[in-house]
Amino acid sequence: MTTREPVPASRWYSTAFRVRYQETDKMGVVYHANYLSWFESGRTEMFRGLGFAYRSLEEMGVLLPVTAADLQFKSPARYDDLIIVYARLSVFSPLRVEYEYEIRRLTEDIGQDSIAGSGSVRIAMPLDPPLPGELLVSGSTSHVWLNAGWKPVRLDRVLPELYQAITGALREEGGA
Amino acid sequence: MTTREPVPASRWYSTAFRVRYQETDKMGVVYHANYLSWFESGRTEMFRGLGFAYRSLEEMGVLLPVTAADLQFKSPARYDDLIIVYARLSVFSPLRVEYEYEIRRLTEDIGQDSIAGSGSVRIAMPLDPPLPGELLVSGSTSHVWLNAGWKPVRLDRVLPELYQAITGALREEGGA
Amino acid sequence: MTTREPVPASRWYSTAFRVRYQETDKMGVVYHANYLSWFESGRTEMFRGLGFAYRSLEEMGVLLPVTAADLQFKSPARYDDLIIVYARLSVFSPLRVEYEYEIRRLTEDIGQDSIAGSGSVRIAMPLDPPLPGELLVSGSTSHVWLNAGWKPVRLDRVLPELYQAITGALREEGGA
Amino acid sequence: MTTREPVPASRWYSTAFRVRYQETDKMGVVYHANYLSWFESGRTEMFRGLGFAYRSLEEMGVLLPVTAADLQFKSPARYDDLIIVYARLSVFSPLRVEYEYEIRRLTEDIGQDSIAGSGSVRIAMPLDPPLPGELLVSGSTSHVWLNAGWKPVRLDRVLPELYQAITGALREEGGA
Repeated sequence: MTTREPVPASRWYSTAFRVRYQETDKMGVVYHANYLSWFESGRTEMFRGLGFAYRSLEEMGVLLPVTAADLQFKSPARYDDLIIVYARLSVFSPLRVEYEYEIRRLTEDIGQDSIAGSGSVRIAMPLDPPLPGELLVSGSTSHVWLNAGWKPVRLDRVLPELYQAITGALREEGGA
Repeated sequence: MTTREPVPASRWYSTAFRVRYQETDKMGVVYHANYLSWFESGRTEMFRGLGFAYRSLEEMGVLLPVTAADLQFKSPARYDDLIIVYARLSVFSPLRVEYEYEIRRLTEDIGQDSIAGSGSVRIAMPLDPPLPGELLVSGSTSHVWLNAGWKPVRLDRVLPELYQAITGALREEGGA
Repeated sequence: MTTREPVPASRWYSTAFRVRYQETDKMGVVYHANYLSWFESGRTEMFRGLGFAYRSLEEMGVLLPVTAADLQFKSPARYDDLIIVYARLSVFSPLRVEYEYEIRRLTEDIGQDSIAGSGSVRIAMPLDPPLPGELLVSGSTSHVWLNAGWKPVRLDRVLPELYQAITGALREEGGA
Repeated sequence: MTTREPVPASRWYSTAFRVRYQETDKMGVVYHANYLSWFESGRTEMFRGLGFAYRSLEEMGVLLPVTAADLQFKSPARYDDLIIVYARLSVFSPLRVEYEYEIRRLTEDIGQDSIAGSGSVRIAMPLDPPLPGELLVSGSTSHVWLNAGWKPVRLDRVLPELYQAITGALREEGGA
């Protein structure tokens, strides 16, 4: 999974939110399929932290669907928990992308305002280990670049400027 | 729906977040059932704004399930939109609760950090009209107080201190 | 809501399935937003019962998004319940559509095979009251016809053959 | 993953349903997290095919949460597709359980009635390869037995009669 491509892997980026009631199940914990959606919020915010909105990629005719995913459930999240999702790139190439994730629970509020509402979790991005919070779930996802016709493409050929911009941002922020 | 009980209705409270990919559908917009889950985030944060965590109510053996809901879909939310959910109490009594909601889209980022991640939407709570953002969805929900055995209860009898605390907070923040 | 248009309202159609674990919440019952998704399964199967696949409508460039919804929650559904969703048209015009729904729980298996798996609930369609099962949720949804550009259209003008076919099927099956 | 325990792995069991609109996303396909929920429907029906309702296990004070999951996304499911989920046990022991899954799309209706509504997919259970349908997603999940206090238990000690009944059913149906 940690195949080193010419472009260095990124550092950890994070996003935080509170668990919604709808995400729980009769076992009294978060239903496990929600963690995949939380991974996605993590990689979306990682992209945004590098300076790019994933929405723009799709508007430019490029898709990045998931080809594989694995998750390890160590401890469950619960209703109203303050959750932080960490994501980093482990592979970024013109053909494929791989991310790694950690979902952690923050046990105390950061500052006066709580997350959800008008508050925030003030953690400087990007991050270096050790990552704050109690580890709940870890995992990874693999992706390929496709065009709007669902055919595989090379990102450096279909959107060369974007590819250079992303790889440049990855090199600038130091890699891990 | 706006039946005036002895306790004044609350002012508007808000919570903000970005639309998740999982919440969209093949029509390219947010699937409409998600708005009910967003209403819930709104009322949860309204409670928290009054000084109470809804999670605590359930831990004290009181449930507040929904008995009715109505929604009016004016304009759809889309992927990665910055959404703000406004909620206020229109009825608060020992027997029942009613909330009103507006879901709006904020069209520009507030400050340097984006919502989701380490940013926030800095809007002072509670709010008075006009409410910021483009109106997407409005609606209301009705609820009754139940105990853990799913029997209706009077909140002022089963948790008198909590009832006094909530009604006191409602009177203090002025009502609308 | 029961505004009589030139085309008669339909009779009741049904679809059945078992409650999924993912649909429950920490209150031990089905999270209420799921009922809107179940309403949709109901109207999809109602269309199919009239001889049309809703998927085809979208493939022909017509959308039918929800403009309003109301729900009354009488009693909750629970994990693995055998649920039957009844749907009927109360309004069908070139401009708008309205459906009514009842979600009921069947308390005994119909036949040897259970629903979900290789079994089925053998209930002849369409139906007349009284409708089998214990009433859990009722409600209605309103819709408008849009084209792919999200502009309102008249169905009898954009897809005249389809409009005639649907109204013909409604007249044939008798109305209620 | 295919570690042979004293109890033989089961044969393939199946459940079938149509894709719901709510399960799609703006990419025009099923959002990938839904496949985990579909895996669960698969293992629930596998249990039912062996003669046991998973709901009963929880009512008897035993939980079987997921500890790990992996998925391989070969081809996407789409709205209104007729989906069949195949599940089988690869490991069943007093301490842990592992399932394997295949999610396939059936391209023609089986029989007169369509699935969802009053129809069914008539496929005799259990099954031997080759499995009908076009392969969309494969994967596996691992589980441990816990009591209501979320502590690991041995199933053969906490519910010996149930353990014997399940292992007996597995031996009777032949294993694979």
